[in-house]
Amino acid sequence: MRAPQSNLPQSTAEILARIRERAPRVHCITNTVAQAFTANVLLAVGAVPSMTIAPEEIGAFVAGADALLVNLGTFDAERRSAIDIAIGKASGRIPWLLDPVFIDRSPTRADYGRELVAQSPAAIRLNAPEFVALAGMSAEDKVLTFYAGEHGTVIALTGPTDVITDGIRRAQIGNGHALMGCVTAMGCAGSALAAACLAVEPDCWIATAAGVLALGIAGEMAAERARGPGSLSIEIVDALYRLDGGALLQRAEVA
Amino acid sequence: MRAPQSNLPQSTAEILARIRERAPRVHCITNTVAQAFTANVLLAVGAVPSMTIAPEEIGAFVAGADALLVNLGTFDAERRSAIDIAIGKASGRIPWLLDPVFIDRSPTRADYGRELVAQSPAAIRLNAPEFVALAGMSAEDKVLTFYAGEHGTVIALTGPTDVITDGIRRAQIGNGHALMGCVTAMGCAGSALAAACLAVEPDCWIATAAGVLALGIAGEMAAERARGPGSLSIEIVDALYRLDGGALLQRAEVA
Amino acid sequence: MRAPQSNLPQSTAEILARIRERAPRVHCITNTVAQAFTANVLLAVGAVPSMTIAPEEIGAFVAGADALLVNLGTFDAERRSAIDIAIGKASGRIPWLLDPVFIDRSPTRADYGRELVAQSPAAIRLNAPEFVALAGMSAEDKVLTFYAGEHGTVIALTGPTDVITDGIRRAQIGNGHALMGCVTAMGCAGSALAAACLAVEPDCWIATAAGVLALGIAGEMAAERARGPGSLSIEIVDALYRLDGGALLQRAEVA
Repeated sequence: MRAPQSNLPQSTAEILARIRERAPRVHCITNTVAQAFTANVLLAVGAVPSMTIAPEEIGAFVAGADALLVNLGTFDAERRSAIDIAIGKASGRIPWLLDPVFIDRSPTRADYGRELVAQSPAAIRLNAPEFVALAGMSAEDKVLTFYAGEHGTVIALTGPTDVITDGIRRAQIGNGHALMGCVTAMGCAGSALAAACLAVEPDCWIATAAGVLALGIAGEMAAERARGPGSLSIEIVDALYRLDGGALLQRAEVA
Repeated sequence: MRAPQSNLPQSTAEILARIRERAPRVHCITNTVAQAFTANVLLAVGAVPSMTIAPEEIGAFVAGADALLVNLGTFDAERRSAIDIAIGKASGRIPWLLDPVFIDRSPTRADYGRELVAQSPAAIRLNAPEFVALAGMSAEDKVLTFYAGEHGTVIALTGPTDVITDGIRRAQIGNGHALMGCVTAMGCAGSALAAACLAVEPDCWIATAAGVLALGIAGEMAAERARGPGSLSIEIVDALYRLDGGALLQRAEVA
Repeated sequence: MRAPQSNLPQSTAEILARIRERAPRVHCITNTVAQAFTANVLLAVGAVPSMTIAPEEIGAFVAGADALLVNLGTFDAERRSAIDIAIGKASGRIPWLLDPVFIDRSPTRADYGRELVAQSPAAIRLNAPEFVALAGMSAEDKVLTFYAGEHGTVIALTGPTDVITDGIRRAQIGNGHALMGCVTAMGCAGSALAAACLAVEPDCWIATAAGVLALGIAGEMAAERARGPGSLSIEIVDALYRLDGGALLQRAEVA
């Protein structure tokens, strides 16, 4: 019997094809630093981003969306109000993904992050210090598994190696490149990509892992052409635009 | 007798030369997703962008500007207040252009868009679904003509083919490239470019058409060098920086 | 005896090495137009940017930062409140740099800029019209010197030639390229770079001059490869990522 994750590159290729075909709408509540890069990453794979946070209209936007991204970067009162409305509209209808950016830097943000976890995100993408701040526990493998199972969500912990678990299944992804850490909003864009995958794939664990894998491989391809983080940010958008099954199957380092 | 639009490439070259010479100030009320790309597009052609929306100071900025862009993306209460002040300062003194982004997604935004049309924008740039939401009518040629004439404005409907009409004259532009739709804020940047043209050209129909034509041709030139939407967004800024009469006259597909 | 500034290229190389080693956190209150480019410039040299302006959490972010940038672009009530909290947390603990963007366009902004100068920034980076609006005096050399000494700060006046003075010492930098003026937020990014230098170098005059010199040289290197302002903005991030003592010593035009 093959482990489910052995099919991840193939599943990712199929999910990307579905995104290009269906052009899902992904509403992104994200920080102003990340907005343009996030929108361009979504457009590159064929998704349609929208980004308003105005309380007067965010409900209408989420009602017409196929997935929702909730990113806590540049967190303020207006954004909290937008998040509440948006999650209310999304709940039980479309999947939403939480990206608790920098919650290790601010107790206020960490408290709010925990409140949001209680509202059943389909997935949470974060790095190790953010997980520690969210869970109050170390970012070890068994803790990730426990936390995901306990909260009925998918945890995608990204770093030099990425781990994606839903409490039962676990994928470990070795793709990516160190230079990606020198581009602002790379993690935010990965979260947006995973949200686009959630829009077209009902298995949240596969969808989230597909988003992480696609960004990692695009990042590697981009790094081969880049001369620094400036050109990397451009090359990665180009690589996502052209990413296909061939590159995914050839390059995937999934365990 | 030649139709007026037959001179559009030549007029566009002259307008771009005037922008480079006069460095008009274009104040942009635009969404945070679009701000940086919009500013870079304006700087590339020689215009000087400013972007504050603070009620305390937007009046002073618009008072010193040569044209105003009102873009409804990321629309909220603060922005509405800024728009009211800005249009008040602009009216009867400098031209302003309306870009009713995504009004097809939110009834609140569509209502507000209609209120703004009543305040006499020099031009409105939008796509077909946005026109339908604004006008409550289909985006057919005769409807565009009627709407522009009725409201005393210029309508620039952009898409695979662009149509620019003031109710009497009509230009149809075939330039552009499909890849432009994969870059966020491309339409917003086109609106900003048209606003820069309005700053130096009193004939609003010629000015708006010049902005649309310049972006379409720059997009084509950029697409010849780009490997995807990431590099396209960079190449288009470079192409606008170098755009001259030669390329305009050689490439223009105007009917 | 050699003038102190003759060692500036060497000092700049050492400061950049220290930034890469220590990865100082630079909290940036900056305008939304400039955020992504500023963050990418900081990441390229090895600093860690954060950008929230929410009153609820900015105190925690500045408490964990090594330097603070206060940029007045897109100035509004929320930002003013964030600035007050941030400077309160920074004062006497970490250096902060003021970038009074566009204060020549708005009397409100100029008044507020003067209030901030009274709160002892380590340095102020601005262009000539902004200095005139701030100081109420012409941007001549002796006035810059007087103003810096009077306010106990470093003035970095940037333009075709940059002048950095603390009232006693003076450096004049001839590096840079005209195309840099066609990229939005270039000055803001230079301010952020100087703030990163302040985070690791206690001599504020040397730190500020190092930031200005590094950007100027990176800009020259970028301009040699760029085809316009679009590619320049990418190349300059790549050049900063690779900038080393060799290029600094070879290219510096310091008097």
